Amino acid sequence: MKIGIIGAGRIGRLHAENIARLVQSIEIVGISDVNMTDELKSWAKNLGIALVTADPTELINHPDIEAIIVCSSTSTHADFTIAAAKAGKHIFCEKPIDLSVKKGLEAINTAKQHKVKLQVGFNRRFDHNFKQVSDLTKAGKVGDVHVVKITSRDPTPPNPAYVAVSGGIFLDMMIHDFDMARFQANSEIVEVFAVGAVLVDPEIGKAGDIDTAIVTLKFANGAIGVIDNSRQAVYGYDQRVEVFGSKGAARAENDTPTRVSLSTVEGVTSDKPLYFFLERYKGAFVDEISSFVEAIEKNCDVVVSGEDGLEDMVAALAAGKSLKEGRPVTIAEMKKELGVY
Amino acid sequence: MKIGIIGAGRIGRLHAENIARLVQSIEIVGISDVNMTDELKSWAKNLGIALVTADPTELINHPDIEAIIVCSSTSTHADFTIAAAKAGKHIFCEKPIDLSVKKGLEAINTAKQHKVKLQVGFNRRFDHNFKQVSDLTKAGKVGDVHVVKITSRDPTPPNPAYVAVSGGIFLDMMIHDFDMARFQANSEIVEVFAVGAVLVDPEIGKAGDIDTAIVTLKFANGAIGVIDNSRQAVYGYDQRVEVFGSKGAARAENDTPTRVSLSTVEGVTSDKPLYFFLERYKGAFVDEISSFVEAIEKNCDVVVSGEDGLEDMVAALAAGKSLKEGRPVTIAEMKKELGVY
Amino acid sequence: MKIGIIGAGRIGRLHAENIARLVQSIEIVGISDVNMTDELKSWAKNLGIALVTADPTELINHPDIEAIIVCSSTSTHADFTIAAAKAGKHIFCEKPIDLSVKKGLEAINTAKQHKVKLQVGFNRRFDHNFKQVSDLTKAGKVGDVHVVKITSRDPTPPNPAYVAVSGGIFLDMMIHDFDMARFQANSEIVEVFAVGAVLVDPEIGKAGDIDTAIVTLKFANGAIGVIDNSRQAVYGYDQRVEVFGSKGAARAENDTPTRVSLSTVEGVTSDKPLYFFLERYKGAFVDEISSFVEAIEKNCDVVVSGEDGLEDMVAALAAGKSLKEGRPVTIAEMKKELGVY
Amino acid sequence: MKIGIIGAGRIGRLHAENIARLVQSIEIVGISDVNMTDELKSWAKNLGIALVTADPTELINHPDIEAIIVCSSTSTHADFTIAAAKAGKHIFCEKPIDLSVKKGLEAINTAKQHKVKLQVGFNRRFDHNFKQVSDLTKAGKVGDVHVVKITSRDPTPPNPAYVAVSGGIFLDMMIHDFDMARFQANSEIVEVFAVGAVLVDPEIGKAGDIDTAIVTLKFANGAIGVIDNSRQAVYGYDQRVEVFGSKGAARAENDTPTRVSLSTVEGVTSDKPLYFFLERYKGAFVDEISSFVEAIEKNCDVVVSGEDGLEDMVAALAAGKSLKEGRPVTIAEMKKELGVY
Repeated sequence: MKIGIIGAGRIGRLHAENIARLVQSIEIVGISDVNMTDELKSWAKNLGIALVTADPTELINHPDIEAIIVCSSTSTHADFTIAAAKAGKHIFCEKPIDLSVKKGLEAINTAKQHKVKLQVGFNRRFDHNFKQVSDLTKAGKVGDVHVVKITSRDPTPPNPAYVAVSGGIFLDMMIHDFDMARFQANSEIVEVFAVGAVLVDPEIGKAGDIDTAIVTLKFANGAIGVIDNSRQAVYGYDQRVEVFGSKGAARAENDTPTRVSLSTVEGVTSDKPLYFFLERYKGAFVDEISSFVEAIEKNCDVVVSGEDGLEDMVAALAAGKSLKEGRPVTIAEMKKELGVY
Repeated sequence: MKIGIIGAGRIGRLHAENIARLVQSIEIVGISDVNMTDELKSWAKNLGIALVTADPTELINHPDIEAIIVCSSTSTHADFTIAAAKAGKHIFCEKPIDLSVKKGLEAINTAKQHKVKLQVGFNRRFDHNFKQVSDLTKAGKVGDVHVVKITSRDPTPPNPAYVAVSGGIFLDMMIHDFDMARFQANSEIVEVFAVGAVLVDPEIGKAGDIDTAIVTLKFANGAIGVIDNSRQAVYGYDQRVEVFGSKGAARAENDTPTRVSLSTVEGVTSDKPLYFFLERYKGAFVDEISSFVEAIEKNCDVVVSGEDGLEDMVAALAAGKSLKEGRPVTIAEMKKELGVY
Repeated sequence: MKIGIIGAGRIGRLHAENIARLVQSIEIVGISDVNMTDELKSWAKNLGIALVTADPTELINHPDIEAIIVCSSTSTHADFTIAAAKAGKHIFCEKPIDLSVKKGLEAINTAKQHKVKLQVGFNRRFDHNFKQVSDLTKAGKVGDVHVVKITSRDPTPPNPAYVAVSGGIFLDMMIHDFDMARFQANSEIVEVFAVGAVLVDPEIGKAGDIDTAIVTLKFANGAIGVIDNSRQAVYGYDQRVEVFGSKGAARAENDTPTRVSLSTVEGVTSDKPLYFFLERYKGAFVDEISSFVEAIEKNCDVVVSGEDGLEDMVAALAAGKSLKEGRPVTIAEMKKELGVY
Repeated sequence: MKIGIIGAGRIGRLHAENIARLVQSIEIVGISDVNMTDELKSWAKNLGIALVTADPTELINHPDIEAIIVCSSTSTHADFTIAAAKAGKHIFCEKPIDLSVKKGLEAINTAKQHKVKLQVGFNRRFDHNFKQVSDLTKAGKVGDVHVVKITSRDPTPPNPAYVAVSGGIFLDMMIHDFDMARFQANSEIVEVFAVGAVLVDPEIGKAGDIDTAIVTLKFANGAIGVIDNSRQAVYGYDQRVEVFGSKGAARAENDTPTRVSLSTVEGVTSDKPLYFFLERYKGAFVDEISSFVEAIEKNCDVVVSGEDGLEDMVAALAAGKSLKEGRPVTIAEMKKELGVY
């Protein structure tokens, strides 16, 4: 399959390098970026990418290209998705499709009309541990799902300048966990309630955000859940999931660099978790692309749809509203307010 | 130290046997029970307890007895506590002191007036795992506490007849976890929010209760927390605690019967948690009594005071109100409603 | 069952206290010791032992006593065992029956002639972990046994004065592991080969012993095995067993005081093993006595017979010979040399 | 750095693909193989390898090529190593350099004379777990090394036809563990003693080999060690190392596909080890090449030298002799017999 990549920033290059080295079934025809530099050209040449352009429409309209990977800045995601869909290209779009739910919905509907696949970049569903938990649940090993628990903590807080434009902890960070919760519960979230605090860095509070949060969830299937987030776990990236049900519980612990322990007079010491998302989700970044290609080739559903991306965003917005107003907020109420229902 | 035990039911006998066999510093002078049977007399004789009586005042007024352990039915706890306090005896009272917070407060105040120790039977603070987590926190190893997480699941649900008179999941089961949360956070709960569901047994729902619950907590020190409860974890008694803070996290996993694993073509299998509270908290039941004796002998504070018991109960009542009204409930509001502030 | 205990040293008192507190089915009629002190009398009274005597024959000939527990000094084990057997009492004898294999055999044969049970105090077979491994093996879960691996390390070395009279590492320490190996393999050892070194304390070498040893084993059933010993694991008592076979492997890891881990910027730290044998084998000391009583009551085989004790000792002697002569030594050769076959 | 690869079988292709995709600093100029096929040409083209030839001397004499990776059949290793050395190329040679120790020594000496690097393909030293154990030891964390323990079990036995030409379990399988033992002990083996059995497959016995073995080791630094091998662990590739010393112990457990556990009424089940060497040592195969390049670029010692390969082979031969003759065999004796000292 031949593809084009829009955006050669960190994530665009990550996908390009993964594809060039590890996904044999894809050829990268071209990559575009608003900033054309010699460094970019050299990097692309090194990876064997023939076409490097400042104009994304060159890729969108390229006759050989079957699919577009959108890795540009967030404000352009929806427009490129819509343009690519109209050109009949399948789209893998980094999250979020748009900061406006309505605009995101427009992109989704355009992809539907033109019968192209649209996958959103929630890569954690492809993490080997979390996928295994989901597979066990889908295989009935935990029975009916009663409780979904997710812990998600970053190793180091973002700088306050970033925090100010990030959309806040729910849209910037916990949105991944809302997606994970829906994935693991195999059901939609119907209500959220948030508590939060500024405990890591007072500057985050001054930027109008919180850095520590717990959100309870109610799912459509009757299950309940909880997510806890912190902007700083000093021991590393803490990413755990537990699904508890009528027949048992599946738990995913953190990956670690090694399986070595050291026993001394001080105690038994073992590794901290892998440091951050590039290490922990290394394989997941590759697998989400492979899965996207497979969905196109087999003409089956993508694992993370545009609708998934929107539902996750609505949950994040509802959590923000819940925190602000000190009460549970339903997804239905939030959608009504957003005018998307 | 010479003591008397009021109530020779399951928990009274458990304490008696623990003391007789494992707490060398205590002598049980007598035990009372409303149901005098030959079996009880024979059991007591076997343990070397000389005085067996239907009349608890014999113990309360016994000149040799320094402390009373109250293990009778809940409705009598406060009255025996008050009577014992007036007689100048120290009191170890099984939880709860009373189903009425006001009556409980009266008992507490009476003990204070008569300058006797009053300890309440929240034994989990003495569990070797949970105590270790608390000790690490108190030693500053996790830094400032940010998040307290407690998982507490029973192996098998109570029968619906019991559920109907139990006071509900928050007063009957999660009250232990509110106590644990306050113990681990080293701070008072100021607000709770509850979600719940009937997922284990519809009969529990018919009895007016839920069997699965998640409650978020705000603490006075700014930390936040969450407790999840289920009436049935088919794999056994699931009792875990995690304290997360600025310098790290302390986690207590479940105890298991052995440390043996079996590797076969099917996978690697290890033990389920210890089956239920008698197994898991075996040592904690002994240690709470030893600690009570130590508090008397050294004239220091008991580890679980009457006030602790009341705070736990108020949190449980607030959680019930939160679930019913679908909103967060503050402890202050709840206390005002109960007339105890 | 009514019993008498000969020897009120550390191990005699341990058994007495365990029985008095934790083994309800036994009554200790009396205890004897060569050193009669007020402290001993007071200790015995406290435990409810009526008869305290300097004369063990009072116990051996006591009409009420059905079984004798021999905890006196090693040199007296065989004689008391023989005397007790002749008096028709069952015998639980601490290890070893005698330092002379021939004398040990005489004791065993006397017990047989008088049809009394004789159990030897190899308590590790009753450890919950090791018993579980053995149970899994006997249940066929690991298939045919191919390899038995035992690690056994003490937390702190004995003082050189003790080493000089201890019989050496094989008779003093590894003898437990030979017993464990035979127990886990469910087969007799037929050949041993030993390597050893003085790495912990040069004084141990000056006392004519080694402090670090590895011994390979061949079993009668075709399986092979290995034991490694060290006189000092600074992180605590390291006692592990692995049985590997055609269908899998069962592994017993060490017990620890708690199941708590602490994650910090330094790593993840958890508990060292329980410190030494009194902690690790606490339950095993109780269970070996309960098992002895059960064997008498049900008239079935004891779990550790006199013959087991002798086989273990022959293996230890063969290992010593192997180390000295730098060659594998068969059990048959060793027995021939000892004149017991 | 520009390299050539001799031999395009399984291991040659593995190195080529790893280098092409994951080692950015190397360019593969050409690859040679005795069997030139269209499939090979197509595979090479795909990887961007311009030169594909049946004649290895084209690579050895190629002016641009700085290093040769020898992956041809074992009988040609030494000759290609010698030829490459004479042509001034650095050599990475798959194990063993030669089945004859003398011939291997000739290759080593030739490389020395021509001042080129020679690394042998014992990849396990680069395994993240084993490297971590070694790093901890070298950093002094376990103190003086007392005992090295290695467990190494394959998931499935080789077919008997292969066994007959494999050189036997010690040369074919345990040779890796001798190398690991020397690496972990940071000292040479001076004596071995082997016990072995045919327990997995009687056909292996008919082919003149054993399938289960335990070998004890004495090291030059006074430490002792033990290796156990089995041709079949039904639960997967079991590769563990433990280094025990005066200050503690470092242990490497197996890698697993995930960190997920499933708790049910049956127990708690987690993953088996990664299936076999391609999975377990995936990273090690890449890292050994990167390390080789680094040794050339920085002109420092390779991590696994030709001498290492010879020492490992002598240990394997000594183990075979020990098994056959039923006695410990020193490395000195073995070398004398081989005429290499």
